[in-house]
Amino acid sequence: MLSIQVLGNPRDILEIIFGSAQRDLPGYFSVQRAAASYAWYSRLSTHELSAMRASYKRLPWAHKRIGYDLGYTKKLRRLEESISTNALVTEAIVSLAREEFPEEVPQIGLLRPDLSGDLSRVREALKHFVRDWSEEGRDERLTIFGPILEVLRVVEPVAREQMRVLVPGSGLGRLAWEVSQLGYRTTANELSFFMNLAFRFLLSDKHTQRPLQHTLQPYTSWFSHQRSADALFRSVSFPDVVPRLGVSLVLAEQDFLSLRPPRDEASGCEGYDFVVTLFFIDTSLNVIETLEHIHRLLRPGGKWINLGPLLWTGGGQAAVELSLDEVLKVAEMVGFTISGEKDEDAPPREKRRTIECEYTADRLAMMRWLYQAEFWVGTKVQ
Amino acid sequence: MLSIQVLGNPRDILEIIFGSAQRDLPGYFSVQRAAASYAWYSRLSTHELSAMRASYKRLPWAHKRIGYDLGYTKKLRRLEESISTNALVTEAIVSLAREEFPEEVPQIGLLRPDLSGDLSRVREALKHFVRDWSEEGRDERLTIFGPILEVLRVVEPVAREQMRVLVPGSGLGRLAWEVSQLGYRTTANELSFFMNLAFRFLLSDKHTQRPLQHTLQPYTSWFSHQRSADALFRSVSFPDVVPRLGVSLVLAEQDFLSLRPPRDEASGCEGYDFVVTLFFIDTSLNVIETLEHIHRLLRPGGKWINLGPLLWTGGGQAAVELSLDEVLKVAEMVGFTISGEKDEDAPPREKRRTIECEYTADRLAMMRWLYQAEFWVGTKVQ
Repeated sequence: MLSIQVLGNPRDILEIIFGSAQRDLPGYFSVQRAAASYAWYSRLSTHELSAMRASYKRLPWAHKRIGYDLGYTKKLRRLEESISTNALVTEAIVSLAREEFPEEVPQIGLLRPDLSGDLSRVREALKHFVRDWSEEGRDERLTIFGPILEVLRVVEPVAREQMRVLVPGSGLGRLAWEVSQLGYRTTANELSFFMNLAFRFLLSDKHTQRPLQHTLQPYTSWFSHQRSADALFRSVSFPDVVPRLGVSLVLAEQDFLSLRPPRDEASGCEGYDFVVTLFFIDTSLNVIETLEHIHRLLRPGGKWINLGPLLWTGGGQAAVELSLDEVLKVAEMVGFTISGEKDEDAPPREKRRTIECEYTADRLAMMRWLYQAEFWVGTKVQ
Repeated sequence: MLSIQVLGNPRDILEIIFGSAQRDLPGYFSVQRAAASYAWYSRLSTHELSAMRASYKRLPWAHKRIGYDLGYTKKLRRLEESISTNALVTEAIVSLAREEFPEEVPQIGLLRPDLSGDLSRVREALKHFVRDWSEEGRDERLTIFGPILEVLRVVEPVAREQMRVLVPGSGLGRLAWEVSQLGYRTTANELSFFMNLAFRFLLSDKHTQRPLQHTLQPYTSWFSHQRSADALFRSVSFPDVVPRLGVSLVLAEQDFLSLRPPRDEASGCEGYDFVVTLFFIDTSLNVIETLEHIHRLLRPGGKWINLGPLLWTGGGQAAVELSLDEVLKVAEMVGFTISGEKDEDAPPREKRRTIECEYTADRLAMMRWLYQAEFWVGTKVQ
């Protein structure tokens, strides 16, 4: 059932990312690489643990004695257990990948020699379970989803049913799901199968049947900035609600730039009514192209809602690394009017402002990455 | 004159870091590596700029047109200019290294083939000029130096002249200088010559004669999280005051663990009256050893003032990666009483508390790394 609702063929994505010349090597965010990385989770994590144990063992006897009295050896055992706990989820995701992508992911011999696992991207996805689908992530969601949903709530509920919303870079899909719960015809769009496999794990009748079915210890991989071992090893259950695809929520697993404006057969109108970009535009390698494409995908008069910082991919990978005022100027050049910039009478909820927020944060840690993210609403000039 | 006041021989440090077996390769924080990195600053930065220019040139014509209208090509030229501006400082530091370490740093042919420049450590040092010695860094200094200096201000000024304070990991020396200005006999201790060469540049009569003599554009190396090009390219002048070594401030350029307790010839007493660790203890590869050594260096009844987070060197490099409660337990085990933990009547200024603070931050950026650093005062049990 699921495959009908999922748009796009993951095999096409390889060419989008690497071009056909490199077709032999699966794309960085492909099913193959993501599945291999989930499959490697346990082994790579245990390898890290071994390095920590070896380092501890090199301590002089008197310091090992102090370590023992502190419970540090027990702490390393708890880390070992937490890897097993988390592996219940990562291995289930590998099973799902085998079931839903039998051509891409073989039943055995999963790992091609040229596919090394990317542990950091697996851990990032696990943290998104917490941010998107747990009680622990609730405050973070309220802060960043709130201003966006407030704009979407203004439309009359009966009108929403005919309106289309696109959420590119949808990750584990909570924001898109929230939008769909408001009654909009919502398309979640995500390129990375690190995210898509994890989201499918939640969407799957086979793997996720009830709230709080799964458990992670999402913070154990980094001992830094922790106040106590209990904080470090705390468990988080998810999902708080069980998401399902349907007429109001579809998933397009493809590059954002390959999307085309939807066409309403009844009215003949083309384009989304809203495009919502949350922590998305700065992931572009060419943000000018991204803003043009957002504009192209909207119907005339359609709105672009954005919230996020400007963390460009450095080292000359991003074609341009713009400041905020430059991004807003590009938005104007490609045909957007930003609410409240020139029109004084824009509603307050649409006015450009700074939202201080976090991103998949550990709220108990001794360190916070605090974004001064910028919120704005742009209207496609008719 | 300077060399008399500087303790320790940098050549000994090589063995401390790498052991005598690797004597051929200069230590990571050695004069040689630091000088080579300062010498490479301009070339490595220009290399990054070239990658950004090449990436921009690959844009389709229409996007280059937008980029030109935005002033992006001008922005890349401003980056080029800022590299020249910053290189006035880095090249002066190389000159100083040649003058003060003629044996370690040859006049020509500076770069040994096995010494690649570490651009990130050079940039870190440049940011410390801003944090420690500019008006721009004032608020950050107030937040983190304030609680420490408050404890030191309680001692009667006349008594301070006989008291010794050690500041390990002193970086560019502002905190140690502030302590010395209170009248304490202060030892700044720093292992890394990325820091020590930069501090010597300020201390040198030849290189720094007057306040605000030097200028940096410290934020230009990272285009992310900027609101405007003007914010990105803003200049910072330093130093706000000109530091000098003297009887009340000496610099020990050596590994902290190689320091020995000072001996007062008149009284026969041994040990420092205060050890102040700011963003320091978590840099240890063995924090148990570090806490023991702080204890060893203090006189009985002496005080350890700490402020910082717990960002351990990961990947099994640190022998133990402790949580806050574990660090406090080690402190107790090695012989400290932490103020306010068991004694209710500790003065409020000494009580353990969380200080929200930043570290060499760009205060105008769209991103903040906010530490929930912990402050405490430990007394060496008599």
